[in-house]
This record gives sequence, structure tokens and C-alpha cells, in this order.
Amino acid sequence: MDSAIKFYFDFSSPYGYFAAMKIEALASNYGRRLEWHPILLGVVFKTTGSVPLTQIPIKGNYAVHDIARTARFHGIPYQHPSVFPLATQHAARAMLWVRTTYGDNKAVEFAKAVYHAYFVSGADVSQSDFIVQLATSLGVDGCALEAGMAGAPVKDQLRAETALAMEQGVFGSPFMIVDGESFWGFDRFDQMEELLKNGKI
Amino acid sequence: MDSAIKFYFDFSSPYGYFAAMKIEALASNYGRRLEWHPILLGVVFKTTGSVPLTQIPIKGNYAVHDIARTARFHGIPYQHPSVFPLATQHAARAMLWVRTTYGDNKAVEFAKAVYHAYFVSGADVSQSDFIVQLATSLGVDGCALEAGMAGAPVKDQLRAETALAMEQGVFGSPFMIVDGESFWGFDRFDQMEELLKNGKI
Repeated sequence: MDSAIKFYFDFSSPYGYFAAMKIEALASNYGRRLEWHPILLGVVFKTTGSVPLTQIPIKGNYAVHDIARTARFHGIPYQHPSVFPLATQHAARAMLWVRTTYGDNKAVEFAKAVYHAYFVSGADVSQSDFIVQLATSLGVDGCALEAGMAGAPVKDQLRAETALAMEQGVFGSPFMIVDGESFWGFDRFDQMEELLKNGKI
Repeated sequence: MDSAIKFYFDFSSPYGYFAAMKIEALASNYGRRLEWHPILLGVVFKTTGSVPLTQIPIKGNYAVHDIARTARFHGIPYQHPSVFPLATQHAARAMLWVRTTYGDNKAVEFAKAVYHAYFVSGADVSQSDFIVQLATSLGVDGCALEAGMAGAPVKDQLRAETALAMEQGVFGSPFMIVDGESFWGFDRFDQMEELLKNGKI
């Protein structure tokens, strides 16, 4: 019995964006269902004592270079955003609300649109107005979304999703869990594929 | 005109060990000379504010698991040492002294023996006695090495090597610089190979 691939990501994570562009083909090749879990890395980092990669002395310059090079290497369109990182709670809440209201497919379509808006078009996806507008362009009821994003239920839901992810050992983005095996980073797709192919790693 | 691959590593770094097991074949396949640069990650981490991966909450458990899995995935023998990480200044100084006295080939042979002793046999490579004994088994004059390791010149040399590495942007292990392009991590071997193959990345 094959279980789903659990895919955890933060909307401000470039490597999360790369993973989002490649993970559907991988899941589909091995007949696996895919669960998209938006989380808030800022909350996670409070526990691990981490800071965004690009803000670490010396490492930061390398990270900006490595992100662009990794995008080229994998043939993924990428422009480093002028504001980086940024707050992603509006985007994450919106995705959860869209999933509850319109189902998984629309939520995933929305998630990929947020990533594209941020890492290709350079839009400020931290703004709730922009998020509502983007969702509306995908056929979502903007007024209902705006009300939903401001409500307590979706805020509680995102808090719970992030806490649940941490309980399962998630500490970064992207992070994948398959058959109880954890993989951190877009650069572990090779090992994840080995597991999907052979049932062990 | 092809330049050398500069390979920076700390003797307590598991991913540095993996790189050491694979980098000679890669360099040789593309006709590149290889420079082995032992550094002290502890000194580097004071600047970047980093701590050893395995000591970070949540991340630590994952790291231990990922290291063993990565070894299996690449067919490299590995046993997680009972003392980890440990101090590597004796091993690094010894390698520099062996290089000065016996040349590159013997120094590289010694470096690989240190890595094997630590990550396969579980030896305590932080002890200068053990380091001298290991070098002796490779034909090095143990008395001369012992005196050399205790002297100021090799200590200054290691300090200078580590400072020089940091000036070139080195902040982790393994770290490779090829044709001015920097690669951090054993999981960037794929991108480094792309550069070696095509002259660009």
C-alpha cells in the first residue's frame, strides 16, 4: 500500500519553489499521491535558532549565487526577488482556505501561481491585496477569500499545520516525508526518487 | 588553460569525507589537478555563527540519519563515530607537515587514512598520538612529525590556510572552488561536474 508524498514548503523559500516545480512529475511517475503543506518557516526557525540562509555572513552571498545557479541547472525560470525573504502568512492562509473551499487541485494551482508571482515576476506576495487578486484571477471568489483569510479558523489551521509539521521533524523548506522517510532540501530529490523506485533507500 | 579544483574540508566533516572519497575520480575524468586544503571549521563557524549540524534542535537527528543514508546511496562505507564532532587541528597540522616534507601524494594518502580511521574504524583522530601512529604506518617518520606538529610554523600555516579559505568565501565542508565558481556541499558535485564538462554552469 503506497502512501502519499507529504511536501512541506514556505512560500518565501526558493528551493521550495524549485521543489514545487518538479515534485508533481516525480509523484506521478511513481503513482504517488501528493499532499501540499504550506508552513511558516519563521515559526520553525524560532525553535531551531536558524535564520534565513541569505542573511548569514559569507554564506549569504553564496546562497544567492547558488539559488540562481540551481535554477539554471534544472531549467527553472528564476529572478531573485528584490524583497527577500518576506512574510508568507497571507499566502499560506489563502492556500488553506482555497483548499477547504475549492479542493486540492485549485489550491495547488494557486500555490504554484504564488511561487511564480514571487520568484519569476517579482511580485510582493506578502500583501493580502495581491494574494486576493491573484486568487481571483484563478476563478476564486475574492470577497469570500478576503473574509476567510481574516477569520480565526484559517489562522488556527495554519498554526496547527506548522506545529504538526514540526512534530514530524520538519525544520526547513522544502521538506518531504515518504513512507516515514524524511528528506530535507531540493537536493535530496535523487535519494527520494531512489526510495520511490526501489521501496528502500 | 584549466585551473585546479580547490577542495576545502575539515577532518570531522562526514560530507567532507564523502567528497574526499569521490573527488579524485571526478578530477581525473576531466583532467583537472586537485588541491587538498584542510581547514578548521570551528574557526570558520565563529564568523558565520554556525554550530555543527548534529547539535541543532530537530535538525540534528535528521542530519545523523541523512549522513548514513547518503553514504549508502553513494556506496561509501560509513559508521557514525561515537565522539562527534571532534577537534581536528592535530590531523590538519599533520597533513600540512606531511605535504611539506613528503609531497602531495603522501599528504593525500594520509588525509584519506584519517577520514577512514574516523568514519569507518571509529578511531579518535583528535589525539596527536593516534595521528602520529597512523602517519608512521604510511612510512612517515613519526619522531620528525611529532616535532613538526608541535612547532610554530605548522600552526601558523594552518591558521593562514583557514584565514585564506575564508577570504575566498569558504564557510563549510566540503567546499570546492573551480574556475572561480564556488560549490558548497557534497550534493553540489552534480553542478560541479556540469562546469567541468561544459566549461560553464
